[in-house]
Amino acid sequence: MPTSRIIKPYIAERFRSLQDQICREIELEDGRAVFREDLWERPDGGGGRTRVLENGLALGKAGVNFSEVHGELPESLRRQFQRGEGRFFATGVSIVMHPLNPFAPTIHMNVRYFEVDDNLWWFGGGIDLSPAYVFEDDARHFHRELKRVCDSHHPDYYPKFKTWADDYFFLPFRNETRGIGGIFFDYLGSTGGEDKNALFQFVIELGELFSPLYRSLLQKRKNNDYGEEQLQWQRLRRGRYAEFNLAIDRGTKFGLETGGRTESILMSLPPLAAWSYMVEPAPGSPEAISQGWLRKEVNWIQ
Amino acid sequence: MPTSRIIKPYIAERFRSLQDQICREIELEDGRAVFREDLWERPDGGGGRTRVLENGLALGKAGVNFSEVHGELPESLRRQFQRGEGRFFATGVSIVMHPLNPFAPTIHMNVRYFEVDDNLWWFGGGIDLSPAYVFEDDARHFHRELKRVCDSHHPDYYPKFKTWADDYFFLPFRNETRGIGGIFFDYLGSTGGEDKNALFQFVIELGELFSPLYRSLLQKRKNNDYGEEQLQWQRLRRGRYAEFNLAIDRGTKFGLETGGRTESILMSLPPLAAWSYMVEPAPGSPEAISQGWLRKEVNWIQ
Repeated sequence: MPTSRIIKPYIAERFRSLQDQICREIELEDGRAVFREDLWERPDGGGGRTRVLENGLALGKAGVNFSEVHGELPESLRRQFQRGEGRFFATGVSIVMHPLNPFAPTIHMNVRYFEVDDNLWWFGGGIDLSPAYVFEDDARHFHRELKRVCDSHHPDYYPKFKTWADDYFFLPFRNETRGIGGIFFDYLGSTGGEDKNALFQFVIELGELFSPLYRSLLQKRKNNDYGEEQLQWQRLRRGRYAEFNLAIDRGTKFGLETGGRTESILMSLPPLAAWSYMVEPAPGSPEAISQGWLRKEVNWIQ
Repeated sequence: MPTSRIIKPYIAERFRSLQDQICREIELEDGRAVFREDLWERPDGGGGRTRVLENGLALGKAGVNFSEVHGELPESLRRQFQRGEGRFFATGVSIVMHPLNPFAPTIHMNVRYFEVDDNLWWFGGGIDLSPAYVFEDDARHFHRELKRVCDSHHPDYYPKFKTWADDYFFLPFRNETRGIGGIFFDYLGSTGGEDKNALFQFVIELGELFSPLYRSLLQKRKNNDYGEEQLQWQRLRRGRYAEFNLAIDRGTKFGLETGGRTESILMSLPPLAAWSYMVEPAPGSPEAISQGWLRKEVNWIQ
């Protein structure tokens, strides 16, 4: 298919079916809960399909959102691209899943396509994993799978996007990463001369990696035994997750400030989060060891 | 005492003893927990006394922080005051208390004094109440007490500072106030020509109102019967509290961005918070009625 064929409606349609596919797979994995769907329209153009699952057997809360919005270029983007009045189009799928079992990791994925006027476009996205308890095997497997998909498109992708994720999913006031990272990228294609078809293919392959990858991680841990102590650690780590999403995440900020649908944006927040003063896990404890992994520049590929 | 006598160290000392007094009173009220104290120093000048109480009989989490910091004027304040390099001094007491009983309200108070170079100073502060369940009597009593102290200093204070609190303690993306408001003020004295002694007296009287006012509210509700349903509503409301503090509050943002002590700043976050998708309390339920009060321009003074 020639590059010129990859047009907005096609990309949006492909993202929509990605949402369908992931919801089906995740319902199967959970075994009880089903996604509730809310269709919404954006007053200034476009809309979305929000899907949230709560109180499952494996998942406490999961959101898989599709949106396709367009309209006048917001002020913040005009400044960023040094443009005057103009139009934008954006479509994407955003996912956050918070499992019940404290040994199973929270996961986030986003894939998106953006257009400004008719002469600027790019893809963006990312996948990152936030385990309350870090299992090295699982973390390595997660990164290896991301690297495999990245490598099949460009040898620079994984190292570049892994570093980008380290820098992006970071709480400066905690000097701590949100989890064990993953990949993050933005403005892919915006410099011109790139094969749009190939970039779109890359983004779709990441989207298709999501379900099998997360299902394998969830299957491994969702039936682990745990007690109140592990649940409290999970809640504390989810407090940090809420800190990141509310105080730092650019996507959340942009959405809330530009009048996005609040309940769709904040579906990312955990079902339960705790804050306690000066928590310091005992040295050598699984909690302390897990926290020790929450830093940049860990090489998860051996 | 002539105006010229009210100098930085005196104000800081008075705030320090306010912290002592409030901690004593609140420990008495709680009946079990005692404040843990952490002294800290700010690398660039000054420091503080953080005091946090957790797992009390009446209070789940309470923080009463004193700080006195100084140094070079941060970039953000230079821009705000259109000044070049300069010095600042800031001292204040910050309080947040989250009770256990879902019928008892969360409260926040802050009083602060700020100086830029030697020619600009002001007081700021505020008290606001965030009940999960709004009792009209309690809300009226709270506002009447604030008005009483305000009125004894200036007839404009209460109406002006009450509106300011409505506007400040507001979540635009929820179109909802954080609670039933209170008062908020800033830059008091910065326009020059005001009686520093009188302004300081006003701020101290607010500080001294805190303990008796909150104790009376807590005593009324701390032994109410409740169940899991009320606790879940409390946790959901505390999710909104966390949203405000992390995504909106200027003081939190300023503190985190300028390298403040993270654990002291974030002591304001609730012990436990929940997020659930599209929660809509049944019409006419206590939860729905309470939520209905979370709007600006409620006249609590009959």
